[in-house]
Amino acid sequence: MTNDRKISDLGEFGLIDRIAAKVGSAAGVITGIGDDAAVTAMTQGMQLLTSTDMLLEDVHFRRSWHDPYRLGRKSLAVSLSDIAAMGAIPRWALLSLAIPADLPLDFIDDFTRGFLALAAEQGVALIGGDTCTSRAGLVVSVTIMGEQLPGRILRRSGAQPADDIWVTGRLGDAALGLKMLGFDSAQPPGSAPTGSAMAAGCSLNGTEGKDYLLSRLLDPTPRVSTGLALAESGLVSSMIDISDGLLADFGHIAEQSGVGGCICIDNLPLSAAFRLCAGKLPELHDQMALAGGEDYELCFTAPPENREKIVECVKKSGVEVTPVGIVASLPGVAVVRADGTPCTLQIKGFNHFK
Amino acid sequence: MTNDRKISDLGEFGLIDRIAAKVGSAAGVITGIGDDAAVTAMTQGMQLLTSTDMLLEDVHFRRSWHDPYRLGRKSLAVSLSDIAAMGAIPRWALLSLAIPADLPLDFIDDFTRGFLALAAEQGVALIGGDTCTSRAGLVVSVTIMGEQLPGRILRRSGAQPADDIWVTGRLGDAALGLKMLGFDSAQPPGSAPTGSAMAAGCSLNGTEGKDYLLSRLLDPTPRVSTGLALAESGLVSSMIDISDGLLADFGHIAEQSGVGGCICIDNLPLSAAFRLCAGKLPELHDQMALAGGEDYELCFTAPPENREKIVECVKKSGVEVTPVGIVASLPGVAVVRADGTPCTLQIKGFNHFK
Repeated sequence: MTNDRKISDLGEFGLIDRIAAKVGSAAGVITGIGDDAAVTAMTQGMQLLTSTDMLLEDVHFRRSWHDPYRLGRKSLAVSLSDIAAMGAIPRWALLSLAIPADLPLDFIDDFTRGFLALAAEQGVALIGGDTCTSRAGLVVSVTIMGEQLPGRILRRSGAQPADDIWVTGRLGDAALGLKMLGFDSAQPPGSAPTGSAMAAGCSLNGTEGKDYLLSRLLDPTPRVSTGLALAESGLVSSMIDISDGLLADFGHIAEQSGVGGCICIDNLPLSAAFRLCAGKLPELHDQMALAGGEDYELCFTAPPENREKIVECVKKSGVEVTPVGIVASLPGVAVVRADGTPCTLQIKGFNHFK
Repeated sequence: MTNDRKISDLGEFGLIDRIAAKVGSAAGVITGIGDDAAVTAMTQGMQLLTSTDMLLEDVHFRRSWHDPYRLGRKSLAVSLSDIAAMGAIPRWALLSLAIPADLPLDFIDDFTRGFLALAAEQGVALIGGDTCTSRAGLVVSVTIMGEQLPGRILRRSGAQPADDIWVTGRLGDAALGLKMLGFDSAQPPGSAPTGSAMAAGCSLNGTEGKDYLLSRLLDPTPRVSTGLALAESGLVSSMIDISDGLLADFGHIAEQSGVGGCICIDNLPLSAAFRLCAGKLPELHDQMALAGGEDYELCFTAPPENREKIVECVKKSGVEVTPVGIVASLPGVAVVRADGTPCTLQIKGFNHFK
């Protein structure tokens, strides 16, 4: 039995040694964990891409429903998704943990195992971080570094009028998973549960569909290989990851590209589990699909003449892509039904502090 | 009057825009705040150095005694100190903030002003970060990136027997400042005050000495230019920054270099304020000087024949350096008086979780 071991038995340096012992050597890492700073060597001619994310207990996750292994994976996945959205190659990560004194050591072991498993899958090396005590819940902060040739990096700012708007995978699954836990993606998990009445309406047959939706929330798949394939193809004009819902995130592309767009809500790719669960609740269905957070799919734009090549290009990465709308020259993002009638929804993406 | 403005009036994206508006363009920054990841260009032939630190309210600082401007400076300074310790050139920073909903906007404005002021002084560009709500206190996470030619980077692992052990600046001031606030550097600030009786023994004449000691705690000076000068001189065999006290931090050099050492406690450079305050309390004096945390000075080793050149080398950076001991071939770090008698102290450096 190891369940009652505490971090305090190890101490700060014991914990760092324990994590470092699980990290192997990796390409480009000159000095990893254990000095004042990590030293890495970039590939010649490439530019550096960096992004950072914080995950706080009772804001981004609850220990009651997020198992430590998948929390470790997700902590890295959300940052990997940012690198994927730039079409870059992820290389190195820093992991900081502020840990409540009473957290079982097994929790950190499982968290680390999850983090390092996804890192290995994606060819990312853990090269450093910080550990300290927390007086109020677990805090995770991850910084990811990647690289790419200057001409291949994809930004939010390149969308052109008449481009297609594309998305990878399926939308709304993570938000529906959160709803099934009794929360709303327009509110942080730390809020009091408000969605339980609606969640009760999600009558799934058996647990398979529910497990699938929860796995999309708890263990999202960063679309690294797809993002990279699209960047290398030269077919794409702009890209972003969908962390706050398609409507909000395509809105960032539109704003930074100086364009607008029209999204056809009936074209959004939805999973069988999503349709089964939300199909009879039209308002929930549209809200989750258009504005549900945390899918970590990619949204990108490309000239319409590239349509077939794009489908071909992403086939290798095993992810489906779906055209869901058209970039327009006038600002603003409209949402329409398949028959062209406007869709009038009161949609809010997630916004911290609001 | 702006004191009652709250972050919630701005929202997440308003806050990001507000911070981004204060950041200018900078060398090597291709894409700064506002995309999924920042894009930067390294100097050809240089390696990348990265380090990250978290600062938590009521663990690393208290809002009751750390004003936001100096907290912003210190949040960057502790990471800059890591880059300084590698002898590298700091370039870019990421700043993540988890903010309690009731925090006045002025606090974040002043914090940002302090952070960006030190960034400008050190030629560092803020290129990205993350913001979210916190349900328990302000959380700050900073990642710093620097660069240096491979042959110039200084590590903890290069110390050789018979090398001198050097330190920059003055030791113990920050720990004594913390003591004067009623805390002990061997305990996190979040603990109940225990040192007030001893702090009361620190009878300083007037406030000048006290203000100086507190400023060393609240607004430490990262020794970037000194670290860089030493790295470029080729005179130094190993280096580390003193964040946990000289004894603990030279201990890391000793361990990673496979050596030991002897430190002469009577040679430690102490400020006038430190001597005045702690001079009549020998136990406190020795504890603070040898094991007081958060000085963010540098400790380095160098062959004894380089002694004069080292003093000359750092003169330009305006910081004094002092030889405080000798590297030994046998493991273990001994502390002696000027007459060679062993100094027997019960010393503990700071260790999270213990």
